[in-house]
Amino acid sequence: MEGLGEREQSVDAFGWAARDSSGHLSPFAFSRRETGEEEVRVKVLYCGICHSDLHCLKNEWHSSVYPMVPGHEIVGEVSEIGRKVSKFNIGDKIGVGCIVDSCRTCESCREDQENYCTKAVATYNGVHYDGTVNYGGYSDHVVVDERYAVKIPHTLPLASAAPLLCAGISMYSPMKYFGLAGPGKHVGIVGLGGLGHIGVRFAKAFGTKVTVVSSTVGKCKDALENLGADGFLASTDDDQMQAAMGTMDGIIDTVSVSHSVLPLIGLLKSNGKLVLLGATEKPFDLPAFSLIMGRKSVAGSAIGGMKETQEMIDFAAEHGIKADIEVISMDYVNTAMDRLAKGDVRYRFVIDIANTLAATRS
Amino acid sequence: MEGLGEREQSVDAFGWAARDSSGHLSPFAFSRRETGEEEVRVKVLYCGICHSDLHCLKNEWHSSVYPMVPGHEIVGEVSEIGRKVSKFNIGDKIGVGCIVDSCRTCESCREDQENYCTKAVATYNGVHYDGTVNYGGYSDHVVVDERYAVKIPHTLPLASAAPLLCAGISMYSPMKYFGLAGPGKHVGIVGLGGLGHIGVRFAKAFGTKVTVVSSTVGKCKDALENLGADGFLASTDDDQMQAAMGTMDGIIDTVSVSHSVLPLIGLLKSNGKLVLLGATEKPFDLPAFSLIMGRKSVAGSAIGGMKETQEMIDFAAEHGIKADIEVISMDYVNTAMDRLAKGDVRYRFVIDIANTLAATRS
Repeated sequence: MEGLGEREQSVDAFGWAARDSSGHLSPFAFSRRETGEEEVRVKVLYCGICHSDLHCLKNEWHSSVYPMVPGHEIVGEVSEIGRKVSKFNIGDKIGVGCIVDSCRTCESCREDQENYCTKAVATYNGVHYDGTVNYGGYSDHVVVDERYAVKIPHTLPLASAAPLLCAGISMYSPMKYFGLAGPGKHVGIVGLGGLGHIGVRFAKAFGTKVTVVSSTVGKCKDALENLGADGFLASTDDDQMQAAMGTMDGIIDTVSVSHSVLPLIGLLKSNGKLVLLGATEKPFDLPAFSLIMGRKSVAGSAIGGMKETQEMIDFAAEHGIKADIEVISMDYVNTAMDRLAKGDVRYRFVIDIANTLAATRS
Repeated sequence: MEGLGEREQSVDAFGWAARDSSGHLSPFAFSRRETGEEEVRVKVLYCGICHSDLHCLKNEWHSSVYPMVPGHEIVGEVSEIGRKVSKFNIGDKIGVGCIVDSCRTCESCREDQENYCTKAVATYNGVHYDGTVNYGGYSDHVVVDERYAVKIPHTLPLASAAPLLCAGISMYSPMKYFGLAGPGKHVGIVGLGGLGHIGVRFAKAFGTKVTVVSSTVGKCKDALENLGADGFLASTDDDQMQAAMGTMDGIIDTVSVSHSVLPLIGLLKSNGKLVLLGATEKPFDLPAFSLIMGRKSVAGSAIGGMKETQEMIDFAAEHGIKADIEVISMDYVNTAMDRLAKGDVRYRFVIDIANTLAATRS
């Protein structure tokens, strides 16, 4: 699909977009709507690069619309507010994550789980209720209804807060919902990347014992010493895996390439929960017996609701939790994508939009 | 394997056993141990025929030991008690279900979930801690530690109470544990057999809305009129399935032959849980995406702990819940197995042991 989003609107905007499934990004002039009565306009300061940006850019989920301006880990400053806005003032530092609207009337919306609203609108590559395609945070500003933005407390460094809006809430929400947040609990985190490393920090702040499970043994030192994990389990080492059987209350699996989940089920205690965050292309398969013996579960989880996202940000500020990031300039973004594809980042790229985007305007 | 259980013990016993994986049952003289200090001897009155008896008789789970005396839905009368027995008196009507021992020290045992103890001992085809193989309830009496027996309240008819010991607790436990028991909840029950039909009755007693999901459209009338289900969904009818998408808080799937679980996931609301009771031979496969969108879970569940089994029996007595049964004589058992294999029973065979076993002694 192309062109759906190119209806001209009243406010000039500028960002970087991919034009096709090569995923190559380049400068892109476009337009955004007026600020609505309950909306805020946000000058983008920083935008994190999520691994899903890469999937979308290359149309790996077969739903991409071009031109595409990615970015859903947005931290910015309010530059304009609608007449009925009550949560924010001009100058406030705010965050925008993966969704910018939802139906507001379904059970999920009424229960502050807008993320599970079947009509939720994605921050980019999603169709806004006015019929235009949304452009994300690799751009100079965004417009969003105040319900779908959160306050960033003054104590939180802005650049490293950006990844909390997607990676952070993706880890925080399941640890809370599935009862894994607190002393006496033991959680395994599978995959030590953008999501996993923040997950370790949240787990430690909750008082949860946390073991990183990874096939990359080279990440062991960083997991234990930098992030403070209690243990590291090499998923390729059968002896280590065998010794850890039946020890975990829950596992958050961040890996988005297909892999066997049966060994992970084995790590769980009775009543343990394996939570999948990665929408792997191939279905996973599992003998029912592995769940029946021990009343175990396999579940999925996707980001969090707006209320919980604010709670997560406040918790992060209180406990000094931030992402480990590499701040890059806008014109480095294609190189960053190549490096991300190879896993060459510890642990999140964040684009310094405010200081480097304008210079790319020809 | 053969013979493990044939060490001669001090008390003569008589039942029906299969000698090999033909599964054919015939009269069998054997022996049981003395009643231990904390044990009771139980004169068997009724024993239900569980579908797993059929699997075990024919060695379909590849772990059968012959000769095998099946039966783990036992209702009987206490005929002898050990010196330290405190729960029961001679003459009490009691029930024995799927397990007769467990380690008593692990986390599961300490939390009254002996059913998930990895060292739990099955009522038949399980190895007792003294090294002998256990024989089940298709026999004149059993010996069991009082911890693994439950009281049958006077108000509960004995024959139709027998299936509660396995089928009943298998349905009651997951509805309680997964938060499906109570007004405002909607549960789907997949498969209307021995388990499913009791599940409908429990659900109604909880105040839960219940829909039967079955490929056997002929069961619709019975589901609605006899059992009191609120709805019936023909799983083979795509239109009906489509219309019911996103309507259920949970589903208890009793089907033990391989089938696709993806359509069932579709029936769940956000946060919905699909609970598998049947250890199907083939692994099920599922796209992670189907769980992630809506934070859904697939779980397993197996019977219940002893405390919960007593709670279930008391609840059944209070609410007049019983199984629909066909009482048979001992010498009809092979015919009953043939009919069970064809699904030709509504809904549970129960053997009248007390009145028909002795006559089969040659």
